[in-house]
Amino acid sequence: MREKITSTQNARVKRWQHLTTKKGHQKYQAYLIEGWHTVGDAIQAGRPLTAIIGTHEQLTNHGAVLPDSVDQFEVSADIVKKLSDTVTPQGIFAVVTISETATVTPEKATGGWLLLDHVADPGNIGTMVRTADAAGFSGVVFGHGTSSQYNPKVIRAMQGSQFHISLVAGDLGDWIARFKERELAVYGSALNPAAKDYRTVSPTTTFAIIMGNEGQGMTADLLAETTANLYIPIKGQAESLNVGVAAGVLMFQLNSHLLD
Amino acid sequence: MREKITSTQNARVKRWQHLTTKKGHQKYQAYLIEGWHTVGDAIQAGRPLTAIIGTHEQLTNHGAVLPDSVDQFEVSADIVKKLSDTVTPQGIFAVVTISETATVTPEKATGGWLLLDHVADPGNIGTMVRTADAAGFSGVVFGHGTSSQYNPKVIRAMQGSQFHISLVAGDLGDWIARFKERELAVYGSALNPAAKDYRTVSPTTTFAIIMGNEGQGMTADLLAETTANLYIPIKGQAESLNVGVAAGVLMFQLNSHLLD
Repeated sequence: MREKITSTQNARVKRWQHLTTKKGHQKYQAYLIEGWHTVGDAIQAGRPLTAIIGTHEQLTNHGAVLPDSVDQFEVSADIVKKLSDTVTPQGIFAVVTISETATVTPEKATGGWLLLDHVADPGNIGTMVRTADAAGFSGVVFGHGTSSQYNPKVIRAMQGSQFHISLVAGDLGDWIARFKERELAVYGSALNPAAKDYRTVSPTTTFAIIMGNEGQGMTADLLAETTANLYIPIKGQAESLNVGVAAGVLMFQLNSHLLD
Repeated sequence: MREKITSTQNARVKRWQHLTTKKGHQKYQAYLIEGWHTVGDAIQAGRPLTAIIGTHEQLTNHGAVLPDSVDQFEVSADIVKKLSDTVTPQGIFAVVTISETATVTPEKATGGWLLLDHVADPGNIGTMVRTADAAGFSGVVFGHGTSSQYNPKVIRAMQGSQFHISLVAGDLGDWIARFKERELAVYGSALNPAAKDYRTVSPTTTFAIIMGNEGQGMTADLLAETTANLYIPIKGQAESLNVGVAAGVLMFQLNSHLLD
């Protein structure tokens, strides 16, 4: 079914806009994604879409691969502007249902897992999810104080990687405890040289790495619970690495058992 | 000397604003830096400053470490807003003289060198400079098509690392040719698995790594001139790594002879 909407005051448009906010995600258990890269990956991954929204041009261009079962809404440039998080929007969106049923638990998780502890910047979070995907990790756990996986800026930076690996909102204390019960390694990342040089760790098949806040680093009580804390030796004058770069260096050091 | 300026129409204010643009950099051979992190690092590194500009509060807070030999200008909030590249400016700036005399040449360069080939995003460029600093590299060469090292967004992302290592604007073809004449390794970075797995390379004391454009990768004619092209194996479904993350993984793989 294809319906045309031209008014920015339309009730559906207002709901879609609401789906870019935390409140909207909770109320409707759905979120809005934007751009063909992400929408296309969601379709390919068979994610539960309830609406595809786009300009006449976008819906026509991608018509061949849009699933018939999902309602399509042709919208005006004004509506695109209202829904978009970018300055120059492509003009294609989709509504994705949040399904909690497939969530991976720390009791059963296998492979590499990246745990995010109060990471603040949506761009950094998205980059880390993208890197975890490329490094062959199984998933990313969004701990307390970390921007939501449904935040539009996080979604944009993930570039579709959220449809390749598992993203879970979870309690990191719980993840650490369960991994330790299973005798699996949980590595913290610390800026102090008292931690273990990351190059001295032997990769395993199932493990977790925790990355902390850009300014403060990891929460002290989590840092105390890890199997070991890893340190990337850096040059004296430099202050620190960007958290996304540090995560990349660590993940690619430890991923030798994870790639296809 | 401290002078007070309140009008945004003041001739000095207009010149400082001009020092955030390419034309201004060429005309005055100087550029504007912003924020205490960067200004403080410039002072500590003994860079040639011709003016320190700030709100009453900022000039007072940092008064003890501001060099007496540099003129200070106390400015209003309106002027701060005009000069700033950020949404919530700190209110401190400095004018730095561009001095070409200390430029490192490819005939004499030693240590690790990062060469940027048409890298577009200022944030990525700044992150790579910061990472090169942390990894113990000697410097970064800004090739054609790469944003200038004096671009305000590049400056902000470098977080002071530009005052720890050498930044050079150069012709990458020339750098590659000179390094090869000196029988030094120059590594390209390529997305295709036909290139060499980055983990199989033996680190040396002087070498260069080239990173290319975010979308297109490296220029083909430069890629053809390298000693070897390195590939970071990634998982099938993932499309690529962020260029800053890829640069980090490569630099920390090859830096074993570079750290203090």
